[in-house]
Amino acid sequence: MRIALAQLNYHIGNFSANKEKIIRSIQEARHKQADLIVFAELAVSGYPPRDFLEFRDFIQQCHQALAEIAPECTGIAAIIGLPTYNEAPKGKPLFNTAAFIADGEIKQFIHKTLLPNYDIFDEYRYFEPNTSFEVVHYKGKRLAVTICEDLWNVQDNPLYVANPMDELMRQNPDLMINIAASPFNYRQREVRKDVLRRNAMNYHLPLVYVNHVGAQTELLFDGGSLVFDSQGILKHELNYFEEDFRIVDIGELAEMSPNIQDSYSDEIALIHDALVMGIRNYFGKLGFEKAILGLSGGIDSAVTAVLAARALGAENVYNLLLPSRYSSDHSLGDAEKLALNLGMPYHVVSIEEGFNAVEHSLAPYFKGMPFNVTEENIQARLRGVLLMAFSNKFGYILLNTSNKSEAAVGYGTLYGDMNGGLSVIGDVYKTKVFELARYINKNGEIIPENTIVKPPSAELRPDQKDSDSLPDYAVLDEILYLYIEERKGPKEIVALGFDSQLVARILKLVNTNEYKRYQTPPILRVTPKAFGMGRRMPIVAKYLS
Amino acid sequence: MRIALAQLNYHIGNFSANKEKIIRSIQEARHKQADLIVFAELAVSGYPPRDFLEFRDFIQQCHQALAEIAPECTGIAAIIGLPTYNEAPKGKPLFNTAAFIADGEIKQFIHKTLLPNYDIFDEYRYFEPNTSFEVVHYKGKRLAVTICEDLWNVQDNPLYVANPMDELMRQNPDLMINIAASPFNYRQREVRKDVLRRNAMNYHLPLVYVNHVGAQTELLFDGGSLVFDSQGILKHELNYFEEDFRIVDIGELAEMSPNIQDSYSDEIALIHDALVMGIRNYFGKLGFEKAILGLSGGIDSAVTAVLAARALGAENVYNLLLPSRYSSDHSLGDAEKLALNLGMPYHVVSIEEGFNAVEHSLAPYFKGMPFNVTEENIQARLRGVLLMAFSNKFGYILLNTSNKSEAAVGYGTLYGDMNGGLSVIGDVYKTKVFELARYINKNGEIIPENTIVKPPSAELRPDQKDSDSLPDYAVLDEILYLYIEERKGPKEIVALGFDSQLVARILKLVNTNEYKRYQTPPILRVTPKAFGMGRRMPIVAKYLS
Repeated sequence: MRIALAQLNYHIGNFSANKEKIIRSIQEARHKQADLIVFAELAVSGYPPRDFLEFRDFIQQCHQALAEIAPECTGIAAIIGLPTYNEAPKGKPLFNTAAFIADGEIKQFIHKTLLPNYDIFDEYRYFEPNTSFEVVHYKGKRLAVTICEDLWNVQDNPLYVANPMDELMRQNPDLMINIAASPFNYRQREVRKDVLRRNAMNYHLPLVYVNHVGAQTELLFDGGSLVFDSQGILKHELNYFEEDFRIVDIGELAEMSPNIQDSYSDEIALIHDALVMGIRNYFGKLGFEKAILGLSGGIDSAVTAVLAARALGAENVYNLLLPSRYSSDHSLGDAEKLALNLGMPYHVVSIEEGFNAVEHSLAPYFKGMPFNVTEENIQARLRGVLLMAFSNKFGYILLNTSNKSEAAVGYGTLYGDMNGGLSVIGDVYKTKVFELARYINKNGEIIPENTIVKPPSAELRPDQKDSDSLPDYAVLDEILYLYIEERKGPKEIVALGFDSQLVARILKLVNTNEYKRYQTPPILRVTPKAFGMGRRMPIVAKYLS
Repeated sequence: MRIALAQLNYHIGNFSANKEKIIRSIQEARHKQADLIVFAELAVSGYPPRDFLEFRDFIQQCHQALAEIAPECTGIAAIIGLPTYNEAPKGKPLFNTAAFIADGEIKQFIHKTLLPNYDIFDEYRYFEPNTSFEVVHYKGKRLAVTICEDLWNVQDNPLYVANPMDELMRQNPDLMINIAASPFNYRQREVRKDVLRRNAMNYHLPLVYVNHVGAQTELLFDGGSLVFDSQGILKHELNYFEEDFRIVDIGELAEMSPNIQDSYSDEIALIHDALVMGIRNYFGKLGFEKAILGLSGGIDSAVTAVLAARALGAENVYNLLLPSRYSSDHSLGDAEKLALNLGMPYHVVSIEEGFNAVEHSLAPYFKGMPFNVTEENIQARLRGVLLMAFSNKFGYILLNTSNKSEAAVGYGTLYGDMNGGLSVIGDVYKTKVFELARYINKNGEIIPENTIVKPPSAELRPDQKDSDSLPDYAVLDEILYLYIEERKGPKEIVALGFDSQLVARILKLVNTNEYKRYQTPPILRVTPKAFGMGRRMPIVAKYLS
């Protein structure tokens, strides 16, 4: 049996575009003599459609699109993901479904059994879990079709009691097919391969796995669809971070030599490519072409600018250099050098005039009070005013340049440098931002060396350094990682050798700054625990704070 | 049996404060010869603890607090909510539990069966549903103890298959006790009474219901704990929007005349009191006393200021009047009149100086381009800069004054008038803001009449009116209600008699402005569908947009 894997980039709610993309792939697969073509989970709607699923109109449009796709499936069958109604009188109103189409007709619906409801996932909000199991009969073969999480109840996963493949094995399937929307994080590729390999080995069946690719606001889907033989040997691995299409003959799997990716030697390369895709799709799907950002001469804005230039073209990345009386000489120089290295347009607009005016307006009320964080924030906010003015006037989207370390401890100004339509490196700790800069410069200097080696500074008061208020980033990032990614409490972190007062101070900063993160832009997610939809914290609380 | 209902306001994660509050109530109840005292769902931790539940340290602190409460329960028993570990090898790691304590010991854990996972609820993210049912035996009585949603599977609720009370009825209970954290919306009081009454009637048992009270950031818990007799007649109704304590003799329920609330004749009074509590608790639990807001002379900021003055005291509500060249004469006058009516401190700080400076800085880049939304936004953002400067310098929390109608259609400036630590009326449609103003003035003019009767205007360009860009609020709000609260699609709304082009335009505004709402402050929730945690929408999408 020849199976086409269609790894596509869908647009949430854009039924006409998704439908056309699906139909073009069906036509191509049929032209190339495939017997069956497989699309991703919720391909018709895009993933995740979130609360659009609560609109009957939205579900009807999904069904309508599927009805228009079905007639294209003559001479070829298709498996396509979409939400469908649960017709039972009790339970959640929808199923997360794989439709099996053949002979121009919808033949069978297979529903998802294991519904992820953790981190960024909310599937139990919408979907009823499946409880009945039927293989798909097609061309004399029995296909065990499952949806994403359905294959994730391998032995050591404590979350689930049910196991859909154990149920389907009673019907002696010949092949496993899994359609997925498995979001990227820098560890997910290896975890995913391991879980799927274990399924192939456990059940002694070949496995065809088709994933989403593309960015959906903060969620990045990396693609990398897979085919394993019945020994659990990986035979096909589709491209990462781009659409791909491949036809695989299941009968010849055992003999073929593997056709797999080995282009990603380390996590930094994965993060780099994921972020570039994230920016590109954010703009492309919103119908925008041009970005703007504030280039400070520091490493965060430099890395953000390079990633944006690679995503959108350097000519589409506008930079404002926004010096104040506290800016050092090298800041402007380093920023200009980067803009020139990449060929990005830039302007220098001093904030002094605005800063003086605002200080003067406030002087009657602040008189006699010392310069403090208030005046620092005024500068950051005036930069925000100027950047947003360019954004509004010319239709540029402002990119946020905050990193995860400063977002964690609240080292940033709300309505100032925390502004933006999209946070590019908000899920990248400062120490990893340095690694990204080195990776960007691996074939020669793009980011000025001085930007990388000078001590980080916000330059909002004379001779300010990040290290005045924060511990070394190497230490800070380790503590943040243990608290945020590993969810360890203070005692557990201290037991690993960190100073207890420092740990208490950092954790308090993280928790008391939840109010700032609540108002930040969506953050491209590259770790297993990003700020945003996957981390839901109370604002008004008193825990470690 | 004498049962004490302890309707308390908990602080999330503040174990020492919650524990002390619980112990004081136990002591009072014992002193007044109660046999049993009942606290709310997740009383020990506060509700909702959200992802704090993923920290082992947090759960251990819950257990520790319960262990310290238990010895206080001698001569009296207690039912107290907290999260507990699920010791089974499979399933979610926690249960949502009611602990039964007697003789100074934890005697029994009763776990929640029906886990709400819709709107603002994420309980299936954390908790395993209960599947085993045991009544509590105490002083010769059998108590059917359930937790909140467990009683919500009345006949017409399609969501749930299981029904905990049906299971418990096999053990012939004498009494139902339900501990809850049921958030307020202006319809919830009647819905809740109806659901609970039907339980008492269906099972022919008295019902004691203890709810949370107090605000947890955006979620408002209204209290209003209830006792029904076995006929379903309401015999006790505790206070709304404040802590309350009452001892009820279950043996004497049938004979007693009802002791219930009838102080809320309409939804506006409920919304008013809910918002005042929301502001008061937000500040109180964060440890702040003073608010600041921009008083424009318009109705939104006027209503917000009055609510804040009632919550915090007029002397703690600082107002900035921030006129520009486009402000009308009446704006300043109306704003000053309100401040004087209430006795709130205020300053007039013109934004002209800052606006001129920013325009001058931008002139080289914008030359020849016409005045447009860019310059409107600059004004709104400079107001934001000044308000935040006062906030930073003096430790005031900025209150956001946006209403639900403008938040819905994006009629506001991100990083400008959309700023704030808390959105007070962001879940109140403009037409209801007018009703609130009339309610506030019911015993005499507090909000100047001119503020109420003049046509709404943002005053960001000459002679601007809201009606230049938006339909009449009466029409707009109806369409928004149908789309947001009722989740009707465009065809369904048009079928109700609205113009199809207008409907398409409004729905597109709502969906394309999701990116703005993503970055707004938490909004006090008073309707069944507020912007925020209960409405989760994609930003990058193409649905009705």
